[in-house]
Amino acid sequence: MDGSEPSDGPHPLGEFELIARYFARPTGERQGIGDDCALIDVGGQTLAITSDMLLEGVHFLPDVDPEALGHKALAVNLSDLAAAGARPRCFLLDLALPRADARWLEAFSRGMFALAQSHGCALIGGDTTRAPQGAGVAGVLSIAITAIGEIDRARYAGRSGARPGDDIWVSGSLGEAALALAMRRGQIDIPGAAGAGCLQRMDRPTPRIALGQALAGVATAAIDVSDGLLGDLGHILERSAVGAEVYWACVPRVPVFGQLPQARQYACVLAGGDDYELVFTAPAAARPMLENLVGDGVGVTRIGRIDATPGLRLRDGPDGAAPLLTVALQSFDHFRAPSEAAPSAAKEG
Amino acid sequence: MDGSEPSDGPHPLGEFELIARYFARPTGERQGIGDDCALIDVGGQTLAITSDMLLEGVHFLPDVDPEALGHKALAVNLSDLAAAGARPRCFLLDLALPRADARWLEAFSRGMFALAQSHGCALIGGDTTRAPQGAGVAGVLSIAITAIGEIDRARYAGRSGARPGDDIWVSGSLGEAALALAMRRGQIDIPGAAGAGCLQRMDRPTPRIALGQALAGVATAAIDVSDGLLGDLGHILERSAVGAEVYWACVPRVPVFGQLPQARQYACVLAGGDDYELVFTAPAAARPMLENLVGDGVGVTRIGRIDATPGLRLRDGPDGAAPLLTVALQSFDHFRAPSEAAPSAAKEG
Repeated sequence: MDGSEPSDGPHPLGEFELIARYFARPTGERQGIGDDCALIDVGGQTLAITSDMLLEGVHFLPDVDPEALGHKALAVNLSDLAAAGARPRCFLLDLALPRADARWLEAFSRGMFALAQSHGCALIGGDTTRAPQGAGVAGVLSIAITAIGEIDRARYAGRSGARPGDDIWVSGSLGEAALALAMRRGQIDIPGAAGAGCLQRMDRPTPRIALGQALAGVATAAIDVSDGLLGDLGHILERSAVGAEVYWACVPRVPVFGQLPQARQYACVLAGGDDYELVFTAPAAARPMLENLVGDGVGVTRIGRIDATPGLRLRDGPDGAAPLLTVALQSFDHFRAPSEAAPSAAKEG
Repeated sequence: MDGSEPSDGPHPLGEFELIARYFARPTGERQGIGDDCALIDVGGQTLAITSDMLLEGVHFLPDVDPEALGHKALAVNLSDLAAAGARPRCFLLDLALPRADARWLEAFSRGMFALAQSHGCALIGGDTTRAPQGAGVAGVLSIAITAIGEIDRARYAGRSGARPGDDIWVSGSLGEAALALAMRRGQIDIPGAAGAGCLQRMDRPTPRIALGQALAGVATAAIDVSDGLLGDLGHILERSAVGAEVYWACVPRVPVFGQLPQARQYACVLAGGDDYELVFTAPAAARPMLENLVGDGVGVTRIGRIDATPGLRLRDGPDGAAPLLTVALQSFDHFRAPSEAAPSAAKEG
């Protein structure tokens, strides 16, 4: 921070600018704000630590299934640990509840503990508070989870190690969670198993914990896709000071997208959040290993290439002509108006 | 949890009951939910970890000074580290903001970082989100902080080590924060420096970090007074399976209490929250050391004695006759109605 008078100026602050301006300080710790996880060295070991807040009306709808919410609240934090290649160890839960509803709590804790136990991740502490509600004040359910995992620092990738010539890979498939959100909002109807599969992806994301650990020592940079492929890959490009080409034909997506208008495809697959896949970079020498890698029920797909040209260019394939679109490196930002958020990237297409 | 159908029954669940029913699981970690901090062993060292959430309308008023709020949000977490005798190391901040207001954020971060830097405690991560607000519905500011410190496990007290014959001690003085809350609510007027001192105690509590570390290896049990002396001491008694006598004449309080009705004195000094002093137990052999102990600008005062009789009895002094009151071991509980909360303990006096 400089000493000048702070001002919003003509535009409201974006989330990342806000964090940089008011909360980024030299820490003395090995990793600071801005990565999926902070790292701290303790007694010769290294912990990866992440904290995320989920708010009713922002991250989930008031009528959400509480068991799914319990799963998802922990899953989004475990996904950050996955991006760091960490083994989950424990977590803390802060819960602000408009009311203490036994049936709701039983389902929420069941969903949360089922996921926690499947990863050997213990709930060790936290805080429970009644959320305020009254005249003109909505009682908003909020959930803050801090998750802690263990990593091997020598094999840690972070976001800053992508190098020109590296391949870009992504796990599983992208866009289903964003398509599910459009379904829930009544903007689109996807009948049958395809639609149900999308809803499952949104409600019960699978953190790619096993994949993340398998990538430790192989990936040169990694991040989880929480805000959209182009935005999250953009963080890697910015931190690594490199550019990228992404090949649209290669980006893994379920067949139902073939029946949708291209603008919808782009919006969901390239800029849709909440998929919690891993996007990562790796040298070409790792291709044989990665092409055979399976973890958490999915494999990984090569979707592009890091180069030294600033910016991110989407082409149809490696031999494509002019880029289909060139993307400004900006991901979903909670402090910008929805119309300015990530899906706008697709409008150029 | 048993397998029976959950039900609120005739009374809504209290906070502690709620946590015990839905969130207490065997963890495999060395300490679980219910202490000031969770402890985890990492590479031969031990970390103390705590997480607290502060909500507008519950823990602070909408017109709170943002610099004081930044201080207090971190202070309440550092106070938990102090109770564990920990050296603060780092923290994570989750912030849900109704709007990104540059002036507010600048003041909030200034207050938070001033305290953080005075304890060498680095902000290493977190999350910033826009709090939901809509037509006629105000967005609620919420702050969740997770703080991490280092302890010497061999000298850690926790809450369960109090033994009959131990003295009960408290740091500084009690009741000023509760008196300040009554002032802010217009229930009482305390003019001049005495009133200003109370407001300062409520708005800018001092976590007793130096005292907490000095007590490591001396105290047999310790807790910070966040919910009220009797309630917080009650947690030690419950966890240690002991009883206590507390001597009203000995409980340290500022002179202004001498001018107030006894019910107000009891309510503030015995059951008022937010003082963030340390209450702890120690063997009589530690008296010479403790009587000369000064840290964080305050000393410690002997206020009572642990015994084997269940419950907590308040007497005027060690030679008092019948107890002034016998206290049910229940501290402030966010899920009970305000009229049932901690101050009711004083009504018996």
